Amino acid sequence: MRNLPIQTILSDSRKEKPNPETLVFGRSFTDHMFTAEYDEGIGWHSHRIVPYAPVTLDPAAIVFHYGQTVFEGLKAYRSSDGTVRLFRPEENMKRMNQSLDRLCMPKIDEEMALQALTELIQIEKDWIPTLKGTSLYIRPFVIANEAFLGVAPSKKYQFFIILSPVGSYYKEGIHPIKILVENEFVRAVKGGTGGAKTAGNYASGLKAQEVANERGLSQVLWLDGVERKYIEEVGSMNIFFKIDGEVVTPAINGSILEGITRKSILHLLHHWNIPVAERKVSIEEIQEAFEAGKLEEVFGTGTAAVISPVGELNWDGYKMVVNDGKTGPLARQLFNTLTNIQTGLAEDPFDWVLELKNELAKLA
Amino acid sequence: MRNLPIQTILSDSRKEKPNPETLVFGRSFTDHMFTAEYDEGIGWHSHRIVPYAPVTLDPAAIVFHYGQTVFEGLKAYRSSDGTVRLFRPEENMKRMNQSLDRLCMPKIDEEMALQALTELIQIEKDWIPTLKGTSLYIRPFVIANEAFLGVAPSKKYQFFIILSPVGSYYKEGIHPIKILVENEFVRAVKGGTGGAKTAGNYASGLKAQEVANERGLSQVLWLDGVERKYIEEVGSMNIFFKIDGEVVTPAINGSILEGITRKSILHLLHHWNIPVAERKVSIEEIQEAFEAGKLEEVFGTGTAAVISPVGELNWDGYKMVVNDGKTGPLARQLFNTLTNIQTGLAEDPFDWVLELKNELAKLA
Ligand SMILES: Cc1ncc(COP(=O)(O)O)c(C=O)c1O
Ligand SMILES: Cc1ncc(COP(=O)(O)O)c(C=O)c1O
Repeated sequence: MRNLPIQTILSDSRKEKPNPETLVFGRSFTDHMFTAEYDEGIGWHSHRIVPYAPVTLDPAAIVFHYGQTVFEGLKAYRSSDGTVRLFRPEENMKRMNQSLDRLCMPKIDEEMALQALTELIQIEKDWIPTLKGTSLYIRPFVIANEAFLGVAPSKKYQFFIILSPVGSYYKEGIHPIKILVENEFVRAVKGGTGGAKTAGNYASGLKAQEVANERGLSQVLWLDGVERKYIEEVGSMNIFFKIDGEVVTPAINGSILEGITRKSILHLLHHWNIPVAERKVSIEEIQEAFEAGKLEEVFGTGTAAVISPVGELNWDGYKMVVNDGKTGPLARQLFNTLTNIQTGLAEDPFDWVLELKNELAKLA
Repeated sequence: MRNLPIQTILSDSRKEKPNPETLVFGRSFTDHMFTAEYDEGIGWHSHRIVPYAPVTLDPAAIVFHYGQTVFEGLKAYRSSDGTVRLFRPEENMKRMNQSLDRLCMPKIDEEMALQALTELIQIEKDWIPTLKGTSLYIRPFVIANEAFLGVAPSKKYQFFIILSPVGSYYKEGIHPIKILVENEFVRAVKGGTGGAKTAGNYASGLKAQEVANERGLSQVLWLDGVERKYIEEVGSMNIFFKIDGEVVTPAINGSILEGITRKSILHLLHHWNIPVAERKVSIEEIQEAFEAGKLEEVFGTGTAAVISPVGELNWDGYKMVVNDGKTGPLARQLFNTLTNIQTGLAEDPFDWVLELKNELAKLA
């Protein structure tokens, strides 16, 4: 890792930490954050860890008007011996740069970002909850902050890493969720920004989510924007189907986000010699499999939930109950394997985990 | 107009006004702004005019991460007798509410917004430049400012109106622009947010704009995301074609923004008994018309440029030079008619202009 000078200004006061038993997702934040600034002609500068504090922006800042912003999401886990583990953080920094490129934003130095993250976590290590299912959610993001009302890439940016101790993303935990197959709204289309982790993709999904919630369904399954038949992904998860012994997931096509959990699961499935395919999957194919009794399991995958089994798909009123609405054996096995690797309860055969044991010890 | 109590706190200092001769678009802002806040369960409150000042937001504010934000754009013109004119401002407030609805954001009271705008402009009237082609650009916008890292509608919002004295949007003025017909990138698709004025639509267009600029073309003409053949709109303009005596413009289809300039032009054309159609227009049709010598004029329409004639369309290297690269007579007639109505140089037969003469006189 490069050694970048990161200035650190510690906070005078410490906030009270939330009760790990009742932790929710994304509502409390730690005492410090990392930030750096970018100016055209200068590049990234002023890397620093500072007390968590409000951001001050001109009302004409480009991010408010033209949505030039990119983010990432990953987690840190702490085990009882104090070791802190990050799951494939270099993949997040790589994807962040791909997103930045799509949004015409300047790339970050991935090593710098990893170093900043590590230093920040060292300072905030007491914020990492240790209760089963809890973790420290890490949110790196970049916003365009030039004050200019014109549709052009900003000449100024600010990079942040903020941290939030979290419980399970889905209140139901590993229990299966019910999903609405969306026919009216479209999240993203080939040629758009669906492959990038950028704000607009999420804003556009809120309306469909609202409709789903009114119908008692917790998430939306997006279909492609062109033919309205090929499956894309769920709100903030990729999706997998187990059909007649084979696991299939939509291929990366430019309009879905390439999840790091998805990538890891594909790796595990190959490793376990379970038949697996990345290809186009139509909703009709799923319906046919369901009717033939071959739709064995459905599950979403993402950092927040890790694995989220799907117990019901609702497509235009046509209801497909999967595996009797229960968590299937493959979903459970993947969940256990991944979370055990992430939390250090199992070996890490693929070198996915960055352990911060030694680096933390230095400070302890 | 309803009479809402709007608290006013005037600034102690006044900024220097930019030279109207060298005004650019969207870079300088006036001394005051309007703002109001929304909290779930309370509604919009704390309507106030305050000194133009930075916005302070939690780094976890939803707008930074999930892009829940909507904006509008309109202009105020001031004539030498001091009269201030707004062009169809109620249409902007109506469209703002349509955009807010698409983004699951709370509606504003349109009359309140108009009243706020009027009061703000009264205070800032000396900022409205009077030189030909200049105006005061008005940017109302709403941002989601709850600190929450979850994909759900915010429970808190802030509404702003900021003002910026502007010259012509296109440095070339009414001279024709060259446009790239975009084959790779897509701005919006049916089912998405293309019909709303929201940040993500603009962020997604930056990459294509970058490619166009590299090729010496100043704007992008978007094709539909499904068949990649039907014409949608330009960067921040709707588009019109005059083919063999008939004016055609893409019909409103859910993925393009329904421009107020577009609406006004359609009205004028009907009024003038010029044949006009709102329908699907394919790029092949334009090519055929061009080859048959029937593509008489092409122009973009929008608040910033009013009318922007297109002198060249470049589609995959195939170049269509329109009207010898010169401004056509219809574009010129529309530009003159509209700007004369907007600036009070001509009658306002359709009651499009809101004159602030009396209201300003009260304060003078
Ligand atoms: C739209 C979308 N799809 C899929 C995912 C899953 O990606 P990952 O496994 O990297 O968390 C996410 C993010 O969490 C997402 O926001
Ligand atoms: C995407 C887009 N299309 C068209 C327009 C034209 O709309 P209006 O005539 O209301 O300015 C705008 C805004 O100015 C726009 O942003």
